Amino acid sequence: MRHGWQIVAPLAAALGWTTPAMADDPLRSWNDSEAKAAIVSFVEKVVSEDSPTFVPETERIATFDNDGTLWSEQPFYFQLAFALDRVKALSNEHPEWKEREPFASVLKGDIKAVLAGGEHALLELVMATHAGTTTDDFSRTVTEWIASAQHPKTGKRYTAMVYQPMLELLAYLRANGFKTYIVSGGGIEFMRPWAEQVYGVPPEQVVGSSIKTKFEMREGKPALVRLPEINFIDDKEGKPVGINQHIGRKPIAAFGNSDGDLQMLQWTCSGDRTAFCLYVHHTDSDREWAYDRKSSIGRLDKGLDEAAAKGWTVVDMKNDWKRVFPDGP
Amino acid sequence: MRHGWQIVAPLAAALGWTTPAMADDPLRSWNDSEAKAAIVSFVEKVVSEDSPTFVPETERIATFDNDGTLWSEQPFYFQLAFALDRVKALSNEHPEWKEREPFASVLKGDIKAVLAGGEHALLELVMATHAGTTTDDFSRTVTEWIASAQHPKTGKRYTAMVYQPMLELLAYLRANGFKTYIVSGGGIEFMRPWAEQVYGVPPEQVVGSSIKTKFEMREGKPALVRLPEINFIDDKEGKPVGINQHIGRKPIAAFGNSDGDLQMLQWTCSGDRTAFCLYVHHTDSDREWAYDRKSSIGRLDKGLDEAAAKGWTVVDMKNDWKRVFPDGP
Repeated sequence: MRHGWQIVAPLAAALGWTTPAMADDPLRSWNDSEAKAAIVSFVEKVVSEDSPTFVPETERIATFDNDGTLWSEQPFYFQLAFALDRVKALSNEHPEWKEREPFASVLKGDIKAVLAGGEHALLELVMATHAGTTTDDFSRTVTEWIASAQHPKTGKRYTAMVYQPMLELLAYLRANGFKTYIVSGGGIEFMRPWAEQVYGVPPEQVVGSSIKTKFEMREGKPALVRLPEINFIDDKEGKPVGINQHIGRKPIAAFGNSDGDLQMLQWTCSGDRTAFCLYVHHTDSDREWAYDRKSSIGRLDKGLDEAAAKGWTVVDMKNDWKRVFPDGP
Repeated sequence: MRHGWQIVAPLAAALGWTTPAMADDPLRSWNDSEAKAAIVSFVEKVVSEDSPTFVPETERIATFDNDGTLWSEQPFYFQLAFALDRVKALSNEHPEWKEREPFASVLKGDIKAVLAGGEHALLELVMATHAGTTTDDFSRTVTEWIASAQHPKTGKRYTAMVYQPMLELLAYLRANGFKTYIVSGGGIEFMRPWAEQVYGVPPEQVVGSSIKTKFEMREGKPALVRLPEINFIDDKEGKPVGINQHIGRKPIAAFGNSDGDLQMLQWTCSGDRTAFCLYVHHTDSDREWAYDRKSSIGRLDKGLDEAAAKGWTVVDMKNDWKRVFPDGP
């Protein structure tokens, strides 16, 4: 499957044309970089039936991290923004929160103090805002929030802060017979209500962290109730475990942006099969953010070293992407 | 979607003909019973675009129990037969098993004594035979076993003891845009290696009980190692929980045969949506087995009552099925 645009594009560019073939480029927001060439070359290797490395459609599994890989994750994970907004929305029902950390700091708008509370404080926030409801109610709450909440810096809807080049990559892989999965440290039930509309990834192809749920009868009707107890953390070593639980096959392509994705990439790109691993490197402080080895959110340190050692593809956001966001310049 | 055979079949039957239209009946091993009519009527209601109860393809989720619903489960669950065979195969590496229950009874072939040990004995057998290997090794072991092991009573391969009418039902639903899932109390990694070939259900559409796995480096290569610790029991209240974890949508059709499936059926058929719930009732002591309210394996007691109360479809194996097994008369 050699695409017309690949042959025509260099000539057209030299002549200053835009041809219909170029408009048809499925990866049109990607500059003609090594990263783009590596993606296209991999896909052709596995979909061409006469290729020695052909992979049947049923085995074309691609897994994508979400935070920092498909949408932004600064100045803090968007799911934390949801939790903070929920604390405010629920504060009337919890007068005791005014005196109790980390809730008191949330209500004062002192995010620094909240983050200083570390993992324990975040866990308390998540449990207070993610548990206690039925799965149906939680889904509705997330749907309402995602449709209205605004990012503190850009003022955009969070779903407007998804990466246009990655949306194109998802669609390109699907057009080539891949099944695309999200495999995220974020909450599985936080992503499912909007992942299909935004990414084209249906609920059954979302893997994530979860709290326990319990089946019970409520007013004679069966319901699943969300409990304040961790069920599974889909991060680091948890990612291959989560993939095995949900998918039961090793992916042939994996996409991440941080050390939290390293084990998923190691697992995908080990062995003798043809497989593809890619890191998105945040290098664009003008259009998005620039961070890597020393960031507290989305740290990419060991991953950068391993990518260099193993020859994985590293996307330089600043130089490899024409646009970052769908509505960007 | 009214099928030709539905219109032609009664006339042809009256005349003693077999027409090409009848040969095309997707449910050809089903007698023209209430159960068959209910299945076809439900499918037509949700797939006809001009039907007020039309359901888009993405939401056409159907979940099937495995033991007793898609294949036999007598005189004991087939996965237990696997565990018993593994004990024998591994006994040279475990000389201590000769003296230790439940292993000693297994090695003497005294299955009654093994079963008398109850849940604790079974758990020990499962852990000793299902844990300690990598996921890849376990998958190979299951694949070899399923290709060679024979049922103690019929002498058949276990995969020859799947129900032909249910295979037709799976294919019929898929031909109508349904995504078919297995949701079983059996081990997820025990079913995945052969479910695609036997049922047409790929690994990512198998939900089951599981033990924990751990990601680790073995000789520099990443591996998932199976640990002797329960992760999830996909039975009774666990079935709706497992469905929510893996699929993230409520099914619109659910198929079971025992009280272990009751909560899955309750959950599927609650609410105002058009949904379909079916119990396979084992009534055929000649061609298969007959058991229900008092059986220790696959007990169907509360389920029978609830099916009557709610108007769910109950398949009478003896009278509703022309054939039970693919190679049957």
